Amino acid sequence: MQTERVSEAVIRRLPRYYRHLLQLKANGVERISSGSLAQQMRLNASQVRQDFNCFGGFGQQGYGYRVDTLLMEIKNILSLNGRHKVVIVGAGNIGQALAHFEGFEKDGFAVTALFDIDERLVGRDINGKPVLHIDELEGYIRENGADIGVIAARRSAAQEIADRMAAAGVAGIWNFAPVDVVAPVPVEQVHMSDSIICLSYKIAHRDAAEE
Amino acid sequence: MQTERVSEAVIRRLPRYYRHLLQLKANGVERISSGSLAQQMRLNASQVRQDFNCFGGFGQQGYGYRVDTLLMEIKNILSLNGRHKVVIVGAGNIGQALAHFEGFEKDGFAVTALFDIDERLVGRDINGKPVLHIDELEGYIRENGADIGVIAARRSAAQEIADRMAAAGVAGIWNFAPVDVVAPVPVEQVHMSDSIICLSYKIAHRDAAEE
Repeated sequence: MQTERVSEAVIRRLPRYYRHLLQLKANGVERISSGSLAQQMRLNASQVRQDFNCFGGFGQQGYGYRVDTLLMEIKNILSLNGRHKVVIVGAGNIGQALAHFEGFEKDGFAVTALFDIDERLVGRDINGKPVLHIDELEGYIRENGADIGVIAARRSAAQEIADRMAAAGVAGIWNFAPVDVVAPVPVEQVHMSDSIICLSYKIAHRDAAEE
Repeated sequence: MQTERVSEAVIRRLPRYYRHLLQLKANGVERISSGSLAQQMRLNASQVRQDFNCFGGFGQQGYGYRVDTLLMEIKNILSLNGRHKVVIVGAGNIGQALAHFEGFEKDGFAVTALFDIDERLVGRDINGKPVLHIDELEGYIRENGADIGVIAARRSAAQEIADRMAAAGVAGIWNFAPVDVVAPVPVEQVHMSDSIICLSYKIAHRDAAEE
């Protein structure tokens, strides 16, 4: 399927569609109209249709979408049908939390190893995944492959880790360090504060923010 | 200032404006046009102007915006000029990572205490913040106040914690458990997987996703 120039805003809605469709399927819903989907997700129907048109449409309006077909299409678009090997650099709290996070496995993200420079962590085993020394990063990736490299290290080390991961061949970087990194592969920067700042807004403008 | 019916999409862009303006200020930029701001942030200029118009505009187009004025206005809108007391329920990896996260303090979010049910954690001190028993949650909040309650506990406990926090008087809930909670106060659900799913999309559609 040809997909071009899909905006960041559309990309960011895709996981929301995916989650919502999983829930609909779990609830036994077989078919849904763009209008109902939009209402449940607090979007508007024309936006939902526009979003889906970015990827070729997915079926008859009027008659609605089949939930399982739509879910399969969106999984395909998101490349969630395979297994993605994930390595984590930084075995501190964030790295450990991610290594324990049960949500990843069901979407096909498999943490295979963690890396750290701290000798007290190296050699340990976190949720069944080994903590290796950071010096082993490149060798490990070349030998075992890694689709996604996670940066769960301090700010000052983040760019160097990104450089090393990209050079060793990861296809994308998920960065939890509070500094933007630059890489020749796609990078997702996690801005943890953005979410609590939105909450601060919603608390301050409570009457206005709610419908 | 009267702000009504601001869409979720606009709210979610506000922290991005805030971060970008902080960076511009740090770089010594004094004035910026909506066009330049849009280009740097990969938005379009009319969207930036529309977003700002939700809050009354902030100054002359053509001549551009003063960075420090705009930053001050956006901080006000986001309610980032005061101090927000934050309590965290769950002193495991995520709770500990949040208690250590240096990014919060500068925006005025002060973690004052953590709560857990695990006797091995209760009584400890994480980054200078006490870990108290969950039974003390309501008493602590009533006595010391808490603006934001963070749920960093397992899925099965999340809704009960939300109920208890809201009843004890928190103004908003930041939920890291992988299940949506319902509360009579604003809730921000953190969907950790959404970001790695977007990364998966960007890796799969690398040529199309980049401009």
